[in-house]
Amino acid sequence: MYIDFSEAETFLRNCEDAVILTHQSPDGDCIGAGFGLKDILAELGVRSRVVCSDEFPARFDFLTAGVPQEDFEPKTVIAVDIADTKLMGRYEEIYGGRVQLCIDHHESNRDYAEKTLLRESAAAACEIIYSLAKFMGVKISRHCAMCLYTGIATDSGCFKYSCTTPEAHEIAAEMKRNYDINFARINRYMFEVKSRGRMMLEAKFAGLMEEYLDGRLVIAAVTQELMNELGVSWDEFEGLAPLTIQLENTEVGILMKEREPGVFRCSFRSAEDVNVSDICRMLGGGGHAKAAGCTVEGSLEDAKKQLVAAVEQVLL
Amino acid sequence: MYIDFSEAETFLRNCEDAVILTHQSPDGDCIGAGFGLKDILAELGVRSRVVCSDEFPARFDFLTAGVPQEDFEPKTVIAVDIADTKLMGRYEEIYGGRVQLCIDHHESNRDYAEKTLLRESAAAACEIIYSLAKFMGVKISRHCAMCLYTGIATDSGCFKYSCTTPEAHEIAAEMKRNYDINFARINRYMFEVKSRGRMMLEAKFAGLMEEYLDGRLVIAAVTQELMNELGVSWDEFEGLAPLTIQLENTEVGILMKEREPGVFRCSFRSAEDVNVSDICRMLGGGGHAKAAGCTVEGSLEDAKKQLVAAVEQVLL
Repeated sequence: MYIDFSEAETFLRNCEDAVILTHQSPDGDCIGAGFGLKDILAELGVRSRVVCSDEFPARFDFLTAGVPQEDFEPKTVIAVDIADTKLMGRYEEIYGGRVQLCIDHHESNRDYAEKTLLRESAAAACEIIYSLAKFMGVKISRHCAMCLYTGIATDSGCFKYSCTTPEAHEIAAEMKRNYDINFARINRYMFEVKSRGRMMLEAKFAGLMEEYLDGRLVIAAVTQELMNELGVSWDEFEGLAPLTIQLENTEVGILMKEREPGVFRCSFRSAEDVNVSDICRMLGGGGHAKAAGCTVEGSLEDAKKQLVAAVEQVLL
Repeated sequence: MYIDFSEAETFLRNCEDAVILTHQSPDGDCIGAGFGLKDILAELGVRSRVVCSDEFPARFDFLTAGVPQEDFEPKTVIAVDIADTKLMGRYEEIYGGRVQLCIDHHESNRDYAEKTLLRESAAAACEIIYSLAKFMGVKISRHCAMCLYTGIATDSGCFKYSCTTPEAHEIAAEMKRNYDINFARINRYMFEVKSRGRMMLEAKFAGLMEEYLDGRLVIAAVTQELMNELGVSWDEFEGLAPLTIQLENTEVGILMKEREPGVFRCSFRSAEDVNVSDICRMLGGGGHAKAAGCTVEGSLEDAKKQLVAAVEQVLL
C-alpha cells in the first residue's frame, strides 16, 4: 500500500525497536538514509539499528563509526532505498516477507512492504527522509544532516544528473546555512579522492571500453581473468560504471563484472534519453531510467550479444 | 572604487554601447558572465559585444553561437571575472587602462577598474550577475539563465567545491523551477563528455603525478617534449589541474605546462586548508584560495625546485 507523509509520520511515531534494512553493495544513499532515519527515530525515542548484508565501505566511516547499534528483538522492520527484497542479500530470508515500511525513490520498486512511501521523483531516498523530518517537525541533528547530504550528493552525482530536483538544491542550501559541516570534504571523499591503485585502474579502464552500434553503446567487460591480472578487488570497481558514458556519442554504457564464472553483473548508465531501467527489466533486472542493472549468464561473447541485442531493440 | 548592487544598477541602466571583456583562456564562468550580462544589457536596451583574447572553446557553442556581436565604437568598457588586466591578453593594451565597471569574485582582484563590484564570497561571477539581475528586477531570459547556470556549475565543480554557496544552490533550484533547460545535458558536456584522445590523455596523466613532501604535494609536469610525444594540443589540458589532488594525502597539486621553452604556466589546486592563492602571490601570480596560478621560469628541475620550496614554506 502506498502511503503519504502523514501516514509515514503516524507509523514512525508509533513504532518500536526498529531494524532498518539497507541494500547489498551499500552506497551513499542507503547508508545515509539508514543512519539518518536512525537519528530521527532516536529523536522520537525509538531504538533502532541499521543492518546490511555487506559491510559498509570504509569511506563511509564518518557516518557509521561510533553509532551505537542497539541490540533487541525487532518489533518493526523498515527498508530504505530498497526496490526489491532480492537486494537485501542474506537478510531477505529473515526480513523480506515482513517489511512494514519501505521508503524508496526507485520507479522499479516492487511494492513488497505493507506500507510504501515512494517518491519516484526524488533524487535520493535521503531527500524523502529530509522532507519527511521537516514535515514531522523533528529536529535534524548535525550527524543526521551529514547522512542525508551524503545520500543526496552521491545519488545525484553531486547535483549533476537529471534526477537532481530543485528540492535537492534547496535542501543543500538549507543545510549550508544551518549546519557547520565541511561539505566540500564530504564531496572530496565521495567524488575525488582515490588510491594510486584506483587511479591506475581507471587509467586501464579507458582501454577496456568497446564501442557497439556506431558508438551509441559502450561495453566495458571485466572478467575474472582480468581481475586476477590486475590484482584488484571488486570493491575497487564501485563507481566505474559512469565512466562508460564519457564518450560524446555514447547513449548507453554497460559495465560487465564477472562475479562468478559465466555470471555477469551488469551496470547500465544512460547518457541522456534512453531509459535503461526498461532494458534491464527485459533482462530480469531493474533500477532507474538513467542507472539500472541486471545479471546476464553465458560466455563473455554470448553475454555481450544478449546485451547488444537488448539495447539495439530500444535504440532502433 | 568598490561599489554595491545599487550603484552597479545605476551604472548599467545608464551605460551605452558596451564592450564586455572576458579573460584569456576563457572558462565557463567568464563566458557565462559575459554572455549573460549581454542578455541583461539587451533587456535594458543597451548594445554590447563580448570579447576575448582567445577563441571561445567549441563546447561553449551552446552559449555563444548565433549571438549577434554588435559592431560599434565602445562608449563603455566592462570586465567580468577578470582579477587583473594582465589576464585580458591582447585586449589589455586597448582596454586595460579604461575599464569602467568590473564584476568579479576573485579575492586577488587588483582593483584596476573605476568601479568594482566585488563579491569574494560568491561561487562565480555568474552568481553575482544573477543576484544583480534579480536585484534590478530585470527579466532573465532562458539563454541568460543557461549562461549563468553554466558559470556557477563550472566554477563550483558542479556544487562540489568549498566555494559553493547556499546562494549557488538556491539559484540552481530557482532555475530548475522556472526554466525548461536540460541542466543535466549542460553538466554532462561540462564535466563528463570527452574525446577518446582526452580519455587516453587522462589515463596517461595518472603516470605523470610525482609526489613531494611526503605526498602532501603532487606535481604533474607537461613539457613541450612530452606534448610532441603525445600529439595533443594545450587546449586538451584544460581542466586537468583538479586531477593533481585526487590522492588521499595530497594537500596541494600543481599542473606545470611548458607553454614556451623554459616557461611554465602552473595551475595550483588546494585539497582542503592550504591557501594556494598566497603561494601563487609569492611567485608573482594569484587566484582563489583553492585554485590559483603563476608562471615559473627555468629548467624543468629548477622550476620544480622553486615550486617545492614555495609550497614547503606554507606547509611547514
